[in-house]
Amino acid sequence: MADLGRRVRAAARQVALASAEGKNAALHAMAACIRTRADAILAANAEDLADARAKGPSGAFIDRLILNPERLDAIADAVESIAALPDPVGRVLARFERPNGLQIERVATPLGVIGVIFESRPNVTADAGALCLKAGNAAILRAGSESFRSSLAIAEAMGEGLEQAGLPADAIRLVPTRDRAAVGAMLSGLDGNLDVIVPRGGKSLVARVQEEARVPVFAHLEGLNHVYVHGGADLEMAKEIVLNAKMRRTGVCGSAETLLVDQACAETHLKPLISVLLDAGCAVRGDEAVQMADSRVAPATDEDWRTEYLDAIISARIVDSLDVALAHIETYGSHHTDSIVTNDAAAAERFLAEVDSAIVLHNASTQFADGGEFGFGAEIGIATGRMHARGPVGVEQLTSFKYRIRGSGQTRP
Amino acid sequence: MADLGRRVRAAARQVALASAEGKNAALHAMAACIRTRADAILAANAEDLADARAKGPSGAFIDRLILNPERLDAIADAVESIAALPDPVGRVLARFERPNGLQIERVATPLGVIGVIFESRPNVTADAGALCLKAGNAAILRAGSESFRSSLAIAEAMGEGLEQAGLPADAIRLVPTRDRAAVGAMLSGLDGNLDVIVPRGGKSLVARVQEEARVPVFAHLEGLNHVYVHGGADLEMAKEIVLNAKMRRTGVCGSAETLLVDQACAETHLKPLISVLLDAGCAVRGDEAVQMADSRVAPATDEDWRTEYLDAIISARIVDSLDVALAHIETYGSHHTDSIVTNDAAAAERFLAEVDSAIVLHNASTQFADGGEFGFGAEIGIATGRMHARGPVGVEQLTSFKYRIRGSGQTRP
Repeated sequence: MADLGRRVRAAARQVALASAEGKNAALHAMAACIRTRADAILAANAEDLADARAKGPSGAFIDRLILNPERLDAIADAVESIAALPDPVGRVLARFERPNGLQIERVATPLGVIGVIFESRPNVTADAGALCLKAGNAAILRAGSESFRSSLAIAEAMGEGLEQAGLPADAIRLVPTRDRAAVGAMLSGLDGNLDVIVPRGGKSLVARVQEEARVPVFAHLEGLNHVYVHGGADLEMAKEIVLNAKMRRTGVCGSAETLLVDQACAETHLKPLISVLLDAGCAVRGDEAVQMADSRVAPATDEDWRTEYLDAIISARIVDSLDVALAHIETYGSHHTDSIVTNDAAAAERFLAEVDSAIVLHNASTQFADGGEFGFGAEIGIATGRMHARGPVGVEQLTSFKYRIRGSGQTRP
Repeated sequence: MADLGRRVRAAARQVALASAEGKNAALHAMAACIRTRADAILAANAEDLADARAKGPSGAFIDRLILNPERLDAIADAVESIAALPDPVGRVLARFERPNGLQIERVATPLGVIGVIFESRPNVTADAGALCLKAGNAAILRAGSESFRSSLAIAEAMGEGLEQAGLPADAIRLVPTRDRAAVGAMLSGLDGNLDVIVPRGGKSLVARVQEEARVPVFAHLEGLNHVYVHGGADLEMAKEIVLNAKMRRTGVCGSAETLLVDQACAETHLKPLISVLLDAGCAVRGDEAVQMADSRVAPATDEDWRTEYLDAIISARIVDSLDVALAHIETYGSHHTDSIVTNDAAAAERFLAEVDSAIVLHNASTQFADGGEFGFGAEIGIATGRMHARGPVGVEQLTSFKYRIRGSGQTRP
């Protein structure tokens, strides 16, 4: 791993200086190599699948592992769509002139070497490698062991594409072993050759990375998201937003897990809101008032306010005021994504200002927590930390910056 | 320390929500309290000084420790000047509308709790606390033990000012003990109650913090800065820039430590450049060509290229080309501040693009590496890392951001 770190660091410098055209040519070559090597990749995947099926894990796990010609095509398409994004490196983030005539620019630069640790989803290999490269970074990818052969075959195709475009294959390297010690080496930072780690996977992976990493981590542990239906909410809008926030897809990190209904509108809004969820097949666990609204509601315990169900279950309670809603979100939330539904502009502004989450919304579904929905084109994940990256992490947030100063002989008095 | 961490974290939330006017009122009250408590602060300082003199450290150390009415006035003035800066919180960093009508804004938010570990300079207490507060953050300050009483007296004045303005005194707390274990507790992150650490002091302090901290660090270990006099340089401009970069103040992190002269102009430029330095009292350690240019030049060893002298000493060598200059800076530099002197625009652009330092300059002195010179008003330090903050760290870089989304009932398809 130490040697891998050194080689990828050396490649990072070449990639950092590559032009937008050079990087895009490499991305297109990578996509093309994924297509031309389809047989080899699918054969590797068949071996992974045979092993996985022999161990007998769940259907969803197997489904994520499966590659077929259509899925492989989608993977190559995704790499090409990353090529089509605006180049994030070299953007002038600020420009100012000093009284002494110095022209100061703050310009985006690559971050360096990004480590991505993911579970057994072969598509992440291409997706993460391509996003890192687009931002001028090198990448060290650690695949889940069940998808190791598939990921390696994809990574080899990407390496071939990089070299065809005149960039070093070391710019995107899959950790070439299933040995779990490799993860420990990455978490320790590979002797300074890893600048940031992005874990992509379930809660136990993210928790371990956040706990043990000695380098910065872009991640969210969970999305314990709230929809607060304020007293000034339009009922029809609230019903649509609550239903969408919870039920559009229950397994994504942007799904709502707790519904807060203000006492001020409970008489008119509570029962319809709960009914629309129950009728859609969502289990509801509520406080006493919510239980009284519908006999199908189960009682909520304190644990429910702390639970990210990622399932067709929601916790629900009445809050006496905006202040109580804010306090509930601060106490139980995960600083991911929270939404208020109201036609009261002042209440909305307070909510947007005071909720300390990566994404705060007014009159919109929490399911918009997604880089694609932000127009970022693609995201490597969603971060809830406050350092460097927050919210959907697209290619722009995979960059750093430097100051470029142009003078005409200025010296400092 | 665990209790301190919890209390400051709780205060951080109040400070984060304070208005610009509220924070500025607190900064003015803090400055006023520093002035009204001058006698107590100076008395505490006299005790610190008596102890320090009894131990007999160097004159420069004692000088940095000394407070007098004028210096205390300057400390209060600095706090007021921080109040006068634009508020960095709430700035709209980006704004875009999505095709579905969602209005997305990226707005600056406070970072949280900032730990500042500094050596025995009492003024840093006020300076660092005020900068953190201006950016809506709470601060835990660890003073050098020799200035402990002085720093505590200043911190108490600041706490009184905070309370007068209706903010919690816990928003800026000095670690109330000289016990060195407190530093270890800060480096471990105070159970998640410290978001970032800023070390301000000598190399051994910074090295320890960078090595041991489990939370992000904004710092530079050293400023091993280069001035590269390219073949296209104007000699008079080069002389002025080199002399200023090295000799204006030799002890600051922006001072130049190595002079690179291109072979292409060595015949005309080398001797005058070396002479102007030698004549100004700067020792020069050079390669063979530089030694031949002036008999006063001592030979440079490989160690010289790696040495931050912070003194009237410079290493100097001839480089065959821009490529060699870039390779030298990449090999030996510290990614802090580097400058090229040339009238060749293409060479300048390559240097500005390819030197991977926080600050890169064309035709200007490296001594401009300073938040004040950037117009930031004040800085908490200069960072050479690539995560979050880089270059002079002013109040803007002491903020994070979040996404604020305004809709009209949008749900995600």
